[in-house]
Amino acid sequence: MQNNHADEDHDNFYHYSDYDDPEGNEEGSYNCKKGNCSVTKFRYPDGTVRLRNPHIELMDQDILYHLALGSESHDLVEMFGDVKFVCMGGTPKRMESFAYYIMKEIGHKLPTGTTLQDISQYSYRYSMFKVGPVLSVSHGMGVPSIGILLHEIIKLMYHAKAKDPIFFRIGTCGGIGLEGGTVVISDDAVDEMGNHYYQVPMLGKPVRRPAKLDRRLVRELKALADPEDPYDTVTGTTMCANDFYEGLKKFYKN
Amino acid sequence: MQNNHADEDHDNFYHYSDYDDPEGNEEGSYNCKKGNCSVTKFRYPDGTVRLRNPHIELMDQDILYHLALGSESHDLVEMFGDVKFVCMGGTPKRMESFAYYIMKEIGHKLPTGTTLQDISQYSYRYSMFKVGPVLSVSHGMGVPSIGILLHEIIKLMYHAKAKDPIFFRIGTCGGIGLEGGTVVISDDAVDEMGNHYYQVPMLGKPVRRPAKLDRRLVRELKALADPEDPYDTVTGTTMCANDFYEGLKKFYKN
Repeated sequence: MQNNHADEDHDNFYHYSDYDDPEGNEEGSYNCKKGNCSVTKFRYPDGTVRLRNPHIELMDQDILYHLALGSESHDLVEMFGDVKFVCMGGTPKRMESFAYYIMKEIGHKLPTGTTLQDISQYSYRYSMFKVGPVLSVSHGMGVPSIGILLHEIIKLMYHAKAKDPIFFRIGTCGGIGLEGGTVVISDDAVDEMGNHYYQVPMLGKPVRRPAKLDRRLVRELKALADPEDPYDTVTGTTMCANDFYEGLKKFYKN
Repeated sequence: MQNNHADEDHDNFYHYSDYDDPEGNEEGSYNCKKGNCSVTKFRYPDGTVRLRNPHIELMDQDILYHLALGSESHDLVEMFGDVKFVCMGGTPKRMESFAYYIMKEIGHKLPTGTTLQDISQYSYRYSMFKVGPVLSVSHGMGVPSIGILLHEIIKLMYHAKAKDPIFFRIGTCGGIGLEGGTVVISDDAVDEMGNHYYQVPMLGKPVRRPAKLDRRLVRELKALADPEDPYDTVTGTTMCANDFYEGLKKFYKN
């Protein structure tokens, strides 16, 4: 799995220039503006994470409350500087199982007499396990819950100076016209209204954040599928609703 | 604490007639229509819960998946028929502590050689503890997470034939112009835009559910405050945002 991004894939990312654009809220304005591409602004030249909030680097300490970590209380570079893959899923139990699964897959060995420990145990919020370059983190249920995690885990990668970290969400979803058990690699994401952005009101005004996925990564993941696999692997659009029982009606019944 | 509701408080509840009203989505249409009051439709005459979804009672079994309970697999009447108070809060740890706290407060005794057990342990989602008539349940972070819980816990009370159960959400919130540590009893609830309803898209259309609290209960809770308490107890409006870091800006900065 490669995690460097070729030039032709710049349009997979969320650009600063889109956000600064006064018409950035209009649909269709999120396409890559070739020739004026600012994708590198998401990463420093060495691949470390560049935050959009300029105040973080001026803070004495940044407390990642829901992870039970902090930039002052912990040596985050030492602890997490080698992370390459951040894998997120619903329950603590599942992400602990995933950590052990991936340990076997990548042949990672723990020192004799050690076992995995839930790094965020005392947050009582999320559970986080680390297996070499892989973080396996639970995100709970719903967008606000994963939203808090994304804020803190992206800042964690920033503080840790992790290079080119890749973020995955792994889990179940409904599927329209697909056999149960099919593996879907999301190449697009929509909300309950079919919008390609995440809208959140801030200071009384709705702000839209485009939902962009890394198409190069989608292709790499798809290429890993084996025709011998006892299940199908497809790429497709994933819908994320704000209500499991009523909001997802559209998904299951449409 | 009384949990029977006098006639004069009917306008605290969400009425069927509001929902059936074709103009039910208009602001201001949620006021009680005296003379045509249908509040009793939320409860059967004996105080048991009446669901708005007429299909539930026709189902062979109703699986309360995220609680690890079911109407066929468990004798819910036997297990939960005596519940009077459903208390919900963020983390499993806090709600376990609350269960032990309330056990002491109400003088509830467990049989010798027994201890509290997390009833929903194997859901790996929520944690639920029962202390006599009190359920203490974690709801995780965010509206979608508590939304799933409310769907299932209201159905649990329905299946259990619990009489006049009262639902509380207990937790922290920011406060505008209030001393830290002040106890706020919510008598009104708004979203990030100041709306008095919860809007969720269903089948591609936004549906609004009015956010109504039981004013009689608010008065009862307020009356329990002691002037000797080393903190203030006030009633007020609570805002619920969909984003902890950016959506709550309005709340903390306005």
